[in-house]
Amino acid sequence: MSRRPADALPPGATIGILGGGQLGRMSAMAAARLGYRAHVFSTEADAPGVQVAAAHTLAAAYVDAGALARFADAVDVVTFEFENVPAAALEALAGRVPCRPGPGVLAIAQDRLAEKRFLEAAGVPVAPWRAVTGAESLRAALAEIGFPAVLKTTRQGYDGRGQAVLRTAEDAEQAFARLSPKPLVLEAFVPFERELSAIAARGADGAVAVYDAVENAHRDHILHLSLAPARVAEAVAAAARDSARRVAEALDLVGVVALELFLLADGTLIGNEIAPRPHNSGHWTMDACLCGQFEQHIRAVAGLPLGSPARHADAAMLNLVGPEGAARWPRLVAEPGVVLHWYGKADARAGRKLGHATRPLPLGTLAGRETVRLFPEARAQRPDVAP
Amino acid sequence: MSRRPADALPPGATIGILGGGQLGRMSAMAAARLGYRAHVFSTEADAPGVQVAAAHTLAAAYVDAGALARFADAVDVVTFEFENVPAAALEALAGRVPCRPGPGVLAIAQDRLAEKRFLEAAGVPVAPWRAVTGAESLRAALAEIGFPAVLKTTRQGYDGRGQAVLRTAEDAEQAFARLSPKPLVLEAFVPFERELSAIAARGADGAVAVYDAVENAHRDHILHLSLAPARVAEAVAAAARDSARRVAEALDLVGVVALELFLLADGTLIGNEIAPRPHNSGHWTMDACLCGQFEQHIRAVAGLPLGSPARHADAAMLNLVGPEGAARWPRLVAEPGVVLHWYGKADARAGRKLGHATRPLPLGTLAGRETVRLFPEARAQRPDVAP
Repeated sequence: MSRRPADALPPGATIGILGGGQLGRMSAMAAARLGYRAHVFSTEADAPGVQVAAAHTLAAAYVDAGALARFADAVDVVTFEFENVPAAALEALAGRVPCRPGPGVLAIAQDRLAEKRFLEAAGVPVAPWRAVTGAESLRAALAEIGFPAVLKTTRQGYDGRGQAVLRTAEDAEQAFARLSPKPLVLEAFVPFERELSAIAARGADGAVAVYDAVENAHRDHILHLSLAPARVAEAVAAAARDSARRVAEALDLVGVVALELFLLADGTLIGNEIAPRPHNSGHWTMDACLCGQFEQHIRAVAGLPLGSPARHADAAMLNLVGPEGAARWPRLVAEPGVVLHWYGKADARAGRKLGHATRPLPLGTLAGRETVRLFPEARAQRPDVAP
Repeated sequence: MSRRPADALPPGATIGILGGGQLGRMSAMAAARLGYRAHVFSTEADAPGVQVAAAHTLAAAYVDAGALARFADAVDVVTFEFENVPAAALEALAGRVPCRPGPGVLAIAQDRLAEKRFLEAAGVPVAPWRAVTGAESLRAALAEIGFPAVLKTTRQGYDGRGQAVLRTAEDAEQAFARLSPKPLVLEAFVPFERELSAIAARGADGAVAVYDAVENAHRDHILHLSLAPARVAEAVAAAARDSARRVAEALDLVGVVALELFLLADGTLIGNEIAPRPHNSGHWTMDACLCGQFEQHIRAVAGLPLGSPARHADAAMLNLVGPEGAARWPRLVAEPGVVLHWYGKADARAGRKLGHATRPLPLGTLAGRETVRLFPEARAQRPDVAP
């Protein structure tokens, strides 16, 4: 049995969460279940996380020094729900209260160049890439990498924001005009067969727990469906888990990290990006593992022993996004066998993640099935099939 | 597929919960997961339910008319976490906002005489009983019922409070002196083999869902351990479920109700009491069913279709009470295979329910086992065995 580290927080301690979105909300609920008080730092009064937290600090901006100081004084440890919180905010907090993960991890996750160098150093191969510092630099990078390629801002990119696929020189000109003068990176377009992800947790005691790798399908650059486990050879699944473990260890992480991977036709795995926090592609763990990713994250942050990442069911997770997602609530809430998670967002505008639905399935259900239809009640509106 | 009734609350609606204890807390978290806002009416500022609710009304007492009016205006529907909230509070609310369950159900659950008459009328046999209105009435009742017997206050009894076992005339005198002048009831002492309970939910559409019956062991009159399913013949389990269903229907309930039963040596089931709300002996459902009792209760209250009460695992639930329970937190939080739920109470005084731990087990594990040891890490302090 793993042991409780000396600095484990006792029940009643307060866990500060930077960010009040759905990841902060589900983290706060996991903290409450373990007996902790969640204190959410939010720039929005009625944010999803604020609705379920014992306390909150409302600030006009993440870099409000006074608000950060009050927040630091009110909590025993700080974590963040999203890697795009300003590094300055976490740095200001880190001088006053333990931050898990710390500013160093955030710095890597916020910069695609630092992230690629980190992944390579951790032994996770990435697609060929070049830093782009201007129009001339882009032309030189394209000459080396060739078409198709992907041009991305190095910072503040998520859910497909700040990137463009380049198939022609004209694409390149237009994308450069749109994305510059932000720092950019050009990546080779990887002809992947599947997108996988794996989530690893690392405790304050250095123990690592890795969830089974999953496969993900996107729609409009937003995660649409995750299948757990990924329908891949066990050697591939094991390699994905190993890569996630290496990432957690190389980061010297305390918390959870998601590693997104591309699976090529020859079985090679290529690292895409990391997210050092609970991840959309890990939501299935809440309903198919005794210890889901949010509890796992809180355990790490609180200095508790990690829980078991063992999976007691297969699972499919459907994201519910924008007006179409909102329209699915009545059907999904009436569907036996589906666990619905809704985030409490008042505004259901396009592209907004409003909730998700998980369908746990008997172990072994997904293995080897090339096509699965898992959310038939949603199919009436649009087919929901695994890739 | 069941259909959503016309008056189902949409996500974003507010569910008012009278009472801020652990049952209100877990109800509030279930409401949040479905997309509702929980608004807790509490007489304690930092109550367990308040810590996880989107809003709360703090009142000096449950019968504070101004606070009740503000609460009613702020919510779309009201439920209660505990049947000992003053009936006057629910009656005041019922004039302004839908209350589920309503004051009629509360009136039955608050009075042991009304409860016994109700159970008999619903076809659930109860132990022989007599209303006790004074010393002479007690003597007459004892002459009919005989020793041993149990003398109970008709109101405000839970966790063994307000009752005494009578084995002699001297016991009777002492108990009467202690419990009178409150209205009392004398019950025959039932020589039961096991204590069972079954939880039924009834939706606003009249649909009923019943969880598997469980067996319960008490310590110091407080629930100690529940085993799901009860290790009894299927005919007995089915009879327990049927009784719970009859209770839900006879109450015209919208919500969940727990029925406590005594199993006699000849296989007869005797109704003990009902609790028209999520019940301690149903906490296992959170971790062994896709839809636990708190979500089920919120579904009923919100007018949603009920979830499935199907069990995907066997389970043992250990209550964590008072200083001894608090001392178990570090070991249980480190124990793989255990799901820990902690209630956020600052004061761990004797008899206080601080949390519970559920150990899901593969289906079929419990069947036929006469002795099971399920929480070995707790055994170091005191043996934890099923009855």
